[in-house]
Amino acid sequence: MKLQVSLRQRATPYTSRVEALGVSGFSVVNHTILPKAYARTVEEDYWHLKSRVQLWDVGCQRQVELRGADAARLAQLMTPRDLRRAQVGQCLYAPMIDEHAAMLNDPIILKLAEDHFWFSISDADMLLWAKGLAFGMDLDVTVEEPDVWPLAVQGPKADDLVARVFGEQVRGINFFCFKKCEFEGHELLVARSGFSKQGGFEIYVDAFALGGEVWDALWQAGDGLGLSPGCPNLIERIEGGLLSYGNEMTRENNPLECGLEKYCQLDGSLEFIGKAALIEVAKNGHKREIRGLIFDGDPCPACQYRWPLSIDNRQVGYVTSAIWSPRFEKNIALAMLDREYWDHGTRVAVATVDGHQRDGFVSNLPMEVQ
Amino acid sequence: MKLQVSLRQRATPYTSRVEALGVSGFSVVNHTILPKAYARTVEEDYWHLKSRVQLWDVGCQRQVELRGADAARLAQLMTPRDLRRAQVGQCLYAPMIDEHAAMLNDPIILKLAEDHFWFSISDADMLLWAKGLAFGMDLDVTVEEPDVWPLAVQGPKADDLVARVFGEQVRGINFFCFKKCEFEGHELLVARSGFSKQGGFEIYVDAFALGGEVWDALWQAGDGLGLSPGCPNLIERIEGGLLSYGNEMTRENNPLECGLEKYCQLDGSLEFIGKAALIEVAKNGHKREIRGLIFDGDPCPACQYRWPLSIDNRQVGYVTSAIWSPRFEKNIALAMLDREYWDHGTRVAVATVDGHQRDGFVSNLPMEVQ
Repeated sequence: MKLQVSLRQRATPYTSRVEALGVSGFSVVNHTILPKAYARTVEEDYWHLKSRVQLWDVGCQRQVELRGADAARLAQLMTPRDLRRAQVGQCLYAPMIDEHAAMLNDPIILKLAEDHFWFSISDADMLLWAKGLAFGMDLDVTVEEPDVWPLAVQGPKADDLVARVFGEQVRGINFFCFKKCEFEGHELLVARSGFSKQGGFEIYVDAFALGGEVWDALWQAGDGLGLSPGCPNLIERIEGGLLSYGNEMTRENNPLECGLEKYCQLDGSLEFIGKAALIEVAKNGHKREIRGLIFDGDPCPACQYRWPLSIDNRQVGYVTSAIWSPRFEKNIALAMLDREYWDHGTRVAVATVDGHQRDGFVSNLPMEVQ
Repeated sequence: MKLQVSLRQRATPYTSRVEALGVSGFSVVNHTILPKAYARTVEEDYWHLKSRVQLWDVGCQRQVELRGADAARLAQLMTPRDLRRAQVGQCLYAPMIDEHAAMLNDPIILKLAEDHFWFSISDADMLLWAKGLAFGMDLDVTVEEPDVWPLAVQGPKADDLVARVFGEQVRGINFFCFKKCEFEGHELLVARSGFSKQGGFEIYVDAFALGGEVWDALWQAGDGLGLSPGCPNLIERIEGGLLSYGNEMTRENNPLECGLEKYCQLDGSLEFIGKAALIEVAKNGHKREIRGLIFDGDPCPACQYRWPLSIDNRQVGYVTSAIWSPRFEKNIALAMLDREYWDHGTRVAVATVDGHQRDGFVSNLPMEVQ
């Protein structure tokens, strides 16, 4: 299916580069195009990502910038994760919820200064939520989308590649921390993070006009590392249990259903929006939770509708993302399972859209080859 | 370029129908897929839309529902348009702005009751803005995205088609008004509105499960009317001067720049967010405004970047949307022009992405064949 081009689906500083490299498919995230396919199959890309290094245009990971005297207060109001001991230079994965404890987003929060934060968001206009709160509560904070265009380097050779461009110091950056690194006279924020389990960095290029140059420098430094363009890989993401807002999580879910309990500080005096609702959920026990799923049959189609999971014709959950895994030699999926049926090994029937019921079983996340 | 399928880019109740009818391209609006191409060319669709009738899957026009004692207050806070005399049964096109008078959206507001509104939104999560304001200001209002999936019938034969399914009463619905009409035991809201200048209706199907049935009923009633599936047509939209949020308008613009002055009530006691900022803009005179543009050369490519407009090598504006018009036998565009250069007939050079400068001139909107 063709994606129609317009200004509204924003290009990134890297779009001309990925086009030159043969990008063949896009998704749309935060009103911005995300390359999702090149010449190789998802399976070929999977093996490549696990063994070499890839350059990803993730300019769609837009930033919501909070700055000012009330920035820390607003940041904390928006997440159940305790930010009080967060350090400047730290990245924090943080569920964001509303007053009903409904999931609104799951950004990485970058603490740039005591009064300065970036929320690197998944697919929803958190800018508008933050702006609405700031205006409504009359907070002393500016909320903007800055001119920042993340670029990801992912895979086991990522350290080698990024060190060639930003210097050996990048090897010392700890997981989910960032440092400012010099590039052609600019200080760029380089974080050890990314939407894969293969290691790597996200580079927060803070000027559209600089993007092409950073891409080119990394691209040209790839000799001998097997560098290729790439993108978040659905096989690797499902095996690794990485969740995608809008797929696995929506406003229908609370963070406990999304397995994000460890990011929810329900005890003590921490104040955040949705605390009472989330305590209520925790008290009653959440009714369903995301799990892995492994199921039989031919390679399944893309999951565009929630595929029902059932036991004895009674629905017990639904699939949110699915694909064939060459490593498991089975189809794998992420799925929302009712509490009574979420244990590893529970057998369920999967109703994919292509007509036949398939046998499957529930798996813990991340998935492990048996 | 391929669009990758996932749950995150939501299907509508009509997706299976448009697939069966050969849809070949989509856009993404409000995290929902919008059919944008079928077998025919945009030009063939243009002539068809102007002479017959089309059924459009516009389920992506998501609704933000405000309900409760403070619903009317919140609705008014979000727009400079005076809603005080709005009637139940009325649709109101309304710019939405923030405290800096920046355009956030341009929904159609449907007044369902004194304490009940739907905002039928363009591409931005206004739900989050409304929720943030409601929470921050502690308003007595619920803000939800209801299970409503608009379906548009557009073209000069729209009255005939819709009357066959919903009864002759639909012919009496005034422009930008709605009535509840019976369909198989359900009361559906039918409005005389739509994203074309060819006349027609938008049907607010208020249950996903009912959507297929409504589509089928309309589809089967099309005998002799030349009914076909369709979608917003870029040629017709540009000629008619219909603006698209994210293309012509972004947060960089205020409503005066978008030519929406008549929807801004700056005098008197009306209270809305951004009033002071908008009065300031009006006092100083806005510096640029959207205009039409007609320009030479071969049919232009799709506008994915803002194409600069210049006079004597000085930039005086940029193109936001462009396409070849068979009626003008020229390329036509919507463009943002600096004040000194926005008069009809002003000659400018257009730098499209395909390399050569083209001669063009500014046109009033809607465009008229000379």
